[in-house]
Amino acid sequence: MSEQKIPYKIYLDESEMPLNWYNVRADMKNKPAPLLNPGTLQPMTAQELGVVFCDELVKQELDDTTPYIPIPTEIRDFYKMYRPSPLVRAYCLEEKLQTPAKIYYKFEGNNTSGSHKLNSAIAQAYYAKQQGLKGVTTETGAGQWGTALSMACGYLGLDCKVFMVKCSYEQKPFRREVMRTYGASVTPSPSAETEVGRKILAEHPGTTGSLGCAISEAVEVATSTPGYRYVLGSVLNQVLLHQSIIGLEAKAALDKYGVVPDIIIGCAGGGSNLGGLISPFMGEKLRGERDYRFIAVEPASCPSFTRGKFAYDFCDTGMVCPLAKMYTLGSGFIPSANHAGGLRYHGMSSVLSQLYHDGYMEATSVEQTAVFQAAEAFARVEGILPAPESSHAIKVAMDEALKCKETGEAKTILFGLTGTGYFDLTAYEKFHNGEMTDSIPTDADLQVGFDGIPRFPGNEF
Amino acid sequence: MSEQKIPYKIYLDESEMPLNWYNVRADMKNKPAPLLNPGTLQPMTAQELGVVFCDELVKQELDDTTPYIPIPTEIRDFYKMYRPSPLVRAYCLEEKLQTPAKIYYKFEGNNTSGSHKLNSAIAQAYYAKQQGLKGVTTETGAGQWGTALSMACGYLGLDCKVFMVKCSYEQKPFRREVMRTYGASVTPSPSAETEVGRKILAEHPGTTGSLGCAISEAVEVATSTPGYRYVLGSVLNQVLLHQSIIGLEAKAALDKYGVVPDIIIGCAGGGSNLGGLISPFMGEKLRGERDYRFIAVEPASCPSFTRGKFAYDFCDTGMVCPLAKMYTLGSGFIPSANHAGGLRYHGMSSVLSQLYHDGYMEATSVEQTAVFQAAEAFARVEGILPAPESSHAIKVAMDEALKCKETGEAKTILFGLTGTGYFDLTAYEKFHNGEMTDSIPTDADLQVGFDGIPRFPGNEF
Repeated sequence: MSEQKIPYKIYLDESEMPLNWYNVRADMKNKPAPLLNPGTLQPMTAQELGVVFCDELVKQELDDTTPYIPIPTEIRDFYKMYRPSPLVRAYCLEEKLQTPAKIYYKFEGNNTSGSHKLNSAIAQAYYAKQQGLKGVTTETGAGQWGTALSMACGYLGLDCKVFMVKCSYEQKPFRREVMRTYGASVTPSPSAETEVGRKILAEHPGTTGSLGCAISEAVEVATSTPGYRYVLGSVLNQVLLHQSIIGLEAKAALDKYGVVPDIIIGCAGGGSNLGGLISPFMGEKLRGERDYRFIAVEPASCPSFTRGKFAYDFCDTGMVCPLAKMYTLGSGFIPSANHAGGLRYHGMSSVLSQLYHDGYMEATSVEQTAVFQAAEAFARVEGILPAPESSHAIKVAMDEALKCKETGEAKTILFGLTGTGYFDLTAYEKFHNGEMTDSIPTDADLQVGFDGIPRFPGNEF
Repeated sequence: MSEQKIPYKIYLDESEMPLNWYNVRADMKNKPAPLLNPGTLQPMTAQELGVVFCDELVKQELDDTTPYIPIPTEIRDFYKMYRPSPLVRAYCLEEKLQTPAKIYYKFEGNNTSGSHKLNSAIAQAYYAKQQGLKGVTTETGAGQWGTALSMACGYLGLDCKVFMVKCSYEQKPFRREVMRTYGASVTPSPSAETEVGRKILAEHPGTTGSLGCAISEAVEVATSTPGYRYVLGSVLNQVLLHQSIIGLEAKAALDKYGVVPDIIIGCAGGGSNLGGLISPFMGEKLRGERDYRFIAVEPASCPSFTRGKFAYDFCDTGMVCPLAKMYTLGSGFIPSANHAGGLRYHGMSSVLSQLYHDGYMEATSVEQTAVFQAAEAFARVEGILPAPESSHAIKVAMDEALKCKETGEAKTILFGLTGTGYFDLTAYEKFHNGEMTDSIPTDADLQVGFDGIPRFPGNEF
C-alpha cells in the first residue's frame, strides 16, 4: 500500500478490537521465575496468593502456558468507552527532525485516568466483582494507577480504598479529587487506620510516607477485611497480560497498512506499559517468525535494568509481599527526591527481566532534563502534553530518528506514549524555570540498595 | 441500518473530514446586526476592523452571504492532529438513566488544550502568519482559550502574548505552565506593561483583575505594536464559522448511520461551541429542509439569553471594543464569585442572539450544584471528566432523556461535550465537600448591569 495513504491517526473499528489478551510467557523457553514465599522460600501456591488476590487473577498470574486468554465481554464493553486507542503517525515530529525515519506512537492517554493503567484496572476490578467481593484496596504514588482503579470501581459499583503516599496526597490535590469524583476513598499514608501505619507514625511522626508503606497498609486492609482483596498496577504477570491489548491493537493497526516496525521503544518503571506494547511482537521474535529491536528506557536516577542485579528481591519496601526474581536496585533503594514523575520502582516485571537477561531486549537510561527537552519539543509539534514517564520513550525515539538522519536509513520506529502530563505541571514548571537538574546515583548509593537484597542459596548475584 | 450496528464511538476517516467551514449567516433571512463603532455609532468598516484583526479574519467577520468557506490545507493538516473528534453514543448513560432516548455527544476535549477552542485558535493564528505578522495577543480567564492559542502559535512559530486575569494566574498555575510549554508569554493582568494596566493598578492597587481589563490590555498591545494583532476565542462571527467544524463532523457521522437528532443541546457562554455545533443543522432548519429543537443552556448565575436584553452593548468591560447587538446582561455585569468555571460572559454571539430572537432556538438556565451532580454521574458511567461548562449541556441532555423515560418516547438527543475538567478540580473539590452553592442574581442585581447598556436612538430595549 502506498505510503501516502497512511493517515495521521489509525483507529481500528470496534469490530477489529482484540478478543483475547496475549500471554507472552507461553512462548518463552525460559519462563519467568515463580514468586517465592519469603518465609519458606518455596514458590507461592495458588492458595497462598488467593489470600491477597482474587481467584481468577491468581490463575492468570500462574499461567505460563496458555497463549491467548479471552477478554470477557463486560471488559470489552468497558474498553469500548476509550479504546481502540489511536496509533499515530508522527508526521509533524518527523518533519521537525528532518529524518527519513517513520515514527509511530500508540497513545494511551485518551481517557480520564490519563494513562494505560485503566486497561488492567478494569480487568482486576471486574474479576473481583465476579467473585462477589465487596471492594479492593491499593496504593498510589504519582496517582495514575489510583485514578484508573477508581474509574473502574466507580463503573462496576465496587468499593475502592486507595492509600496515597502522604506527600502526593498533599501536593497533588487534583489527583485526589479525580478519585473522589469516581467514588473512591482516598487515605493519606501512613494512616492511623492500620497496624503498620500506626507503628510508622509512632516511630516517625513527621514522615511524608513512601510507596512501600502504602503497599503495606493496602495489603493489611485487604487481608484483614472480609470481602476485600488487594490489587496492583504493574510488575505482576497478570498486569502485563491485560496490557497486551496495547501491543495487539498497535500490531493490528500496523498490519492494516502493511507496516513492520524495526525498533519498538517503551518506558520502563515496573514494566506494565513496555510489556504490554511489545508482547505480540516479542511473541513473533520468540517463535522465530520475525526479528525486532526492543528498547526499554529507564531514568538514569532509577536504573533497574542498566545498573541493577538479576536476583530474587522483595516487591515492596515493607517486605510483606512475596519475593520476585527480577532486575532490582534493592527494595530499600529510593530515587533522589529530585526525580520527577513515576518510574521510581526499584524492581522490574519478572517477564521482562527474563527476556532482557536472555538477550531478547535492550535497555538504556536517560537523564531527566534531556527527557523534558524532548517532551516540550514533542508537545509543540504533535500537540499532546506528554507525561514525564512517557517522555523517556519520546527521547529515545527522537534519538533513534536522528541516527537515521545521519545514516540516511528510513527505519520504522514505534513507541508507546503511555499518558498525559496534566497532573505533572509542577515538574514542567521547574523545567521552564531552569530549576531542574539530573541526579545519577553513585555506585556507593546503589550498593546500599544491593546490600538489602536477601541472600540465600540459589540467589547469587 | 440496524440500531445494533452503531458503535460506541463514531470516528470519521480523515478523508471524510470537511473541506469547508459552513457560514450559517448565509442562510439567515434576518442577518445578525453589524458591529458599531462606539464613537460614530456607524457600522465598523473593514479598515477599522483591520487595525485590530488580521485582514482575512476581517473578511470572514463581515461575510454574511458565502455559505461555504474553504478550510486551507495547512489548517486541515493541523486539524488531523486531533480531529476528527469522536461522536460518542452514550450507551452507558442511557442504561444508567433507563431511558428509551438515544443519546449522542460530540467530544471536543481530546486535545491538550482540553476544549473546542483549538478549532478557531489554529485558524486565527494561521491567517495572522499568512499576513506576515509577528505575533498575536489575547486574554484568558479560565485558561482554555489561552492554552489553545498557545498550542496553535507554538506550532506555527508565531509569538503569543496572553494576558491572564491575575486571580486565575495565581490560582491556576498549571494552566500557565501549559501555555509556557507551548512557548507563550503569560502576563498577569492588570500589568505594568500597558497604559490601561498601569492606570488600573494605580487606582486599585490590590485588584485581582477581570476579563474586561485583560481584553483592554491585549487590545492595547496589539494595536500599538507593529506586526501584532488581537485575537478572540468566542462571540465573533469568524469564531462561529471556524467552530462549524464541530457540527459538520457530527452531522457527517450521524448521516453515515442514518441517524437524525430530534434535540440538539449545547452550553452557551459567548456561543462558540453552541454556534459551531448547531450550524449545519440550523442551516437545514433555516432553509426549511428539516426541523430540529435547539436548546442553549446557560448558568442561572449568568443568564444572558433567559434574562438579558436584546440590545447593542459593549463586547468588553473596558468599553474599548465595538458595540454588538446581542442578548446582554450589560458589560458591567459580573457573575457571583461563587460561580465555578467559564460561561461568565455578559453577552452572546450576535448570530445566536438573532436566531434566538427569531424563534429558531430555545434557551434554558441551570444551577451549578445540579450541574456538578450531572457531571459526576456522567463521569462515572461514561468515563470522561467533563469541564463545568460542558456539564451544563450534560444536565439538560439528562433531563430530556428522563422526560423520554416518562413519556416512553425514543427521541434522539445530541449534545456538545466541549472539554475536560482537569483544570477545574478545585470546583469539584468544593462540590465533594458540600461547599458548593447556587447564586441566582436578583432582578435588582441585573438592573445594575442593564443600566450600563448604552442608550441611543435605535437601541431601545
